[in-house]
Amino acid sequence: MNDKNLKEKSGILIGRMQPLHNGHIQVIKNTFKEVDELIIGIGSAQISHTVENPFTAGERTLMIKKALIEEGVEGDKYYIIPITDIMNNSTWVSHVEMLAPHFNKVFSGNPLVQQLFTEAGYELSKHVLFDRKLLSGTKIRDLMINDGKWEDLVPKSTATIIKKINGVKRLKHIVLKM
Amino acid sequence: MNDKNLKEKSGILIGRMQPLHNGHIQVIKNTFKEVDELIIGIGSAQISHTVENPFTAGERTLMIKKALIEEGVEGDKYYIIPITDIMNNSTWVSHVEMLAPHFNKVFSGNPLVQQLFTEAGYELSKHVLFDRKLLSGTKIRDLMINDGKWEDLVPKSTATIIKKINGVKRLKHIVLKM
Amino acid sequence: MNDKNLKEKSGILIGRMQPLHNGHIQVIKNTFKEVDELIIGIGSAQISHTVENPFTAGERTLMIKKALIEEGVEGDKYYIIPITDIMNNSTWVSHVEMLAPHFNKVFSGNPLVQQLFTEAGYELSKHVLFDRKLLSGTKIRDLMINDGKWEDLVPKSTATIIKKINGVKRLKHIVLKM
Amino acid sequence: MNDKNLKEKSGILIGRMQPLHNGHIQVIKNTFKEVDELIIGIGSAQISHTVENPFTAGERTLMIKKALIEEGVEGDKYYIIPITDIMNNSTWVSHVEMLAPHFNKVFSGNPLVQQLFTEAGYELSKHVLFDRKLLSGTKIRDLMINDGKWEDLVPKSTATIIKKINGVKRLKHIVLKM
Amino acid sequence: MNDKNLKEKSGILIGRMQPLHNGHIQVIKNTFKEVDELIIGIGSAQISHTVENPFTAGERTLMIKKALIEEGVEGDKYYIIPITDIMNNSTWVSHVEMLAPHFNKVFSGNPLVQQLFTEAGYELSKHVLFDRKLLSGTKIRDLMINDGKWEDLVPKSTATIIKKINGVKRLKHIVLKM
Amino acid sequence: MNDKNLKEKSGILIGRMQPLHNGHIQVIKNTFKEVDELIIGIGSAQISHTVENPFTAGERTLMIKKALIEEGVEGDKYYIIPITDIMNNSTWVSHVEMLAPHFNKVFSGNPLVQQLFTEAGYELSKHVLFDRKLLSGTKIRDLMINDGKWEDLVPKSTATIIKKINGVKRLKHIVLKM
Repeated sequence: MNDKNLKEKSGILIGRMQPLHNGHIQVIKNTFKEVDELIIGIGSAQISHTVENPFTAGERTLMIKKALIEEGVEGDKYYIIPITDIMNNSTWVSHVEMLAPHFNKVFSGNPLVQQLFTEAGYELSKHVLFDRKLLSGTKIRDLMINDGKWEDLVPKSTATIIKKINGVKRLKHIVLKM
Repeated sequence: MNDKNLKEKSGILIGRMQPLHNGHIQVIKNTFKEVDELIIGIGSAQISHTVENPFTAGERTLMIKKALIEEGVEGDKYYIIPITDIMNNSTWVSHVEMLAPHFNKVFSGNPLVQQLFTEAGYELSKHVLFDRKLLSGTKIRDLMINDGKWEDLVPKSTATIIKKINGVKRLKHIVLKM
Repeated sequence: MNDKNLKEKSGILIGRMQPLHNGHIQVIKNTFKEVDELIIGIGSAQISHTVENPFTAGERTLMIKKALIEEGVEGDKYYIIPITDIMNNSTWVSHVEMLAPHFNKVFSGNPLVQQLFTEAGYELSKHVLFDRKLLSGTKIRDLMINDGKWEDLVPKSTATIIKKINGVKRLKHIVLKM
Repeated sequence: MNDKNLKEKSGILIGRMQPLHNGHIQVIKNTFKEVDELIIGIGSAQISHTVENPFTAGERTLMIKKALIEEGVEGDKYYIIPITDIMNNSTWVSHVEMLAPHFNKVFSGNPLVQQLFTEAGYELSKHVLFDRKLLSGTKIRDLMINDGKWEDLVPKSTATIIKKINGVKRLKHIVLKM
Repeated sequence: MNDKNLKEKSGILIGRMQPLHNGHIQVIKNTFKEVDELIIGIGSAQISHTVENPFTAGERTLMIKKALIEEGVEGDKYYIIPITDIMNNSTWVSHVEMLAPHFNKVFSGNPLVQQLFTEAGYELSKHVLFDRKLLSGTKIRDLMINDGKWEDLVPKSTATIIKKINGVKRLKHIVLKM
Repeated sequence: MNDKNLKEKSGILIGRMQPLHNGHIQVIKNTFKEVDELIIGIGSAQISHTVENPFTAGERTLMIKKALIEEGVEGDKYYIIPITDIMNNSTWVSHVEMLAPHFNKVFSGNPLVQQLFTEAGYELSKHVLFDRKLLSGTKIRDLMINDGKWEDLVPKSTATIIKKINGVKRLKHIVLKM
């Protein structure tokens, strides 16, 4: 959208959320200190059933919604938008602008995402992200594969959803070598 | 998602919403008589700036969200998901299942959508849709092009959004012949 | 394939086969007067569930196989290959060459297909095709929609397949106006 | 490119050039009254061998180059860039920006192109285009199909190229009905 | 296809066959103990001319057909279908269903393929596959590159085809470093 | 283009030019000993903003044009054509033929490119390329990232362009780990 004044303070945060974990929730809640409205973009939306990306966009959408209800974040304040990958980095910001309502602040810890939005003239939040060494999707997926305790690192509803869809079994099967 | 029991009563309604109008709002509100949760799919999400499809997926997402807030529909009860077209009808239901959280009832007045979901084993709602002869995107776009009174046919917030983004001017320019 | 001498006399015939009908069968049988081996390409393989293209590539593959068994055409003498459309006419012959075993003669009544293969240096058969005014996919689909007698215009096994998959019902539903 | 000051006066003109004709040449020459450098974008670059778009991007590139040499336009002053179509109007300007060197003025008589570049903040030239009723690709293709005199409507080198590649024969064959 | 009863016992086996080898032939022949009809899907059909995937779909189709004729497997009992990769695992089964005639049993040693078909409700065969440590495409390609004896590991007709198309020379050239 | 006699001696050279460097310029100038006209294809045109491919096709087009002006290579003698990647090696030559004017000689040090053009019947130049151990895009990008002296390895105008677009800063940011 072109009208930069439609909403004074609106932000976007994009992540793969494979799976959604407590770090994401903490960051999402913190963004509301800076913006009135948040677009939560689900990155690599078309990818699923891989070791790095076990869950579908729909499953990840459900995880986010249920966790934010659990946390008491009001449903009117955010959007959950699947963002499929495209082959061209230089048109990617334009692709996001097409899919998402207007925003003027970007929350990201990803250097490429930062670079692309900066070149397109967007303001990056200085907002501190969670410590990826302590908590990351990679770490959680490793725990799932190796029968570790992953359940406390994700929202309660996310753990429930993963169990209902047999997510750990899926991941353990995919990781097998042929 | 495969677990058919995750949510007892969840539905999907897919439309292009070019633009969102009062008929859509009435149908969306009626679906909640049959389901607890509704996925609102924005069809042909990648198309914009054409006479048939003037608005982007992001703009249409904004229209829906603001109108449902206006109507007092609780934000926790629905999802707004852009659905890009794919070339293959026979894989389209699978494409929707990838992008959307689990659903078990389909609301659609479109014969092709009905056929595809029926072949995939979904239940169609008998829910009566709005009368497309009285109210349709086509009719509203014609009024916009010909300086007619379209504002009362759409939610108040939708009219505001279309004005802020100069939507009528966009449509009138695109419709010009080269 | 590059080795032009691998098989002395091999041909290709491409059609949408929506559905397979007696004209196709007659042409296929006639090609064996000119070639030892025939590649039957199913055109627009990715399209289905439209009024012009009601059947999937898989359904059309089944129709062809069962009809040729019925006709006593030996299974070792032909290939059935789905050919998806690509956006570029000028790379289309190369796309077909990638998907199909080597061939050196082209059977086609389609002017575009003739032009593309001719520019690529292939020999076109002078082989007379069936009379499209008497027998065509369009005519058969019209009969299906209007409760006409279409069954005698297609191979017996094709009629059986169409009935088993509720093909006429599918076509009649898709043709409905929203 | 982001540096808006790299070249003070650089323009872009996009057309399908099916085929290149004297109107295009006149417009191209006129643009140099406003800009130092011109990017000539070949639209719908991936399409060829259709009645509306008979020639490939490579053939059209050759037509433009040879005609501009003929006209004495210096080769250092322009770029010829094939622009493939993408499905999304709202990311199309970004797609052009990826493929073309920096530009700051847009020459176009196409309302959609004008709208998209305007929304992206570009300046449109007021430059008067040729009269499309007198001279157009459509008119020239019709003359080719109907054995009319088209040769004088295109640059001499373009006529030579079309003859060498048997372009009229191609067009006449493609236009045949199956 | 939706009619699950069209053919009582039909199976699908998908492999890249780069190249076809004796292990594939052994497995294909064994499947007929469980099914009446077999669909042989050529995976990654669009890939060729890489070190991992030297042969085109057409070349692989030819290898399979000629080897099965050699082995006396009746041509009416199987289909050879190229399956192009798509980006989305979660719609891949639907993509295969579009391209292939109806099937109800899946033969695969690939964990991802097993997982995807299982989630879609298909029955996997317990059928023992060949020992991939003794015989694999990787091993054969390594032998080709290093002038080893690969000919006895593939069907006789496959060796002939590879020689006719200069397949080993192709592979040796592609593997060179720039 | 099909007419092989349109231009007696025309060549193509394809490279990613990430960035353009003195080795490319030396090779380009040498090709004119063998051909009258050169097509300079920019490979992987759609990729940018990666560590291996930092610059857009448009930026690379500008680098080439300005460097050849600097070197006094006449603008009428060459074409600069962005070549986007396609998924299929076996249709890639056809894709290049679509985008480029007619050529009959290929300049390439890339084994895959050599193989594909050779299988399509093109003549490869024996022309000696620059020594990739002394001078390569990889080496230059490493120098940029590590504050080395890269400026003397590229044309003067290329260094200027990279500075104006903050290319080194872009590369240093992208290379950061998340």
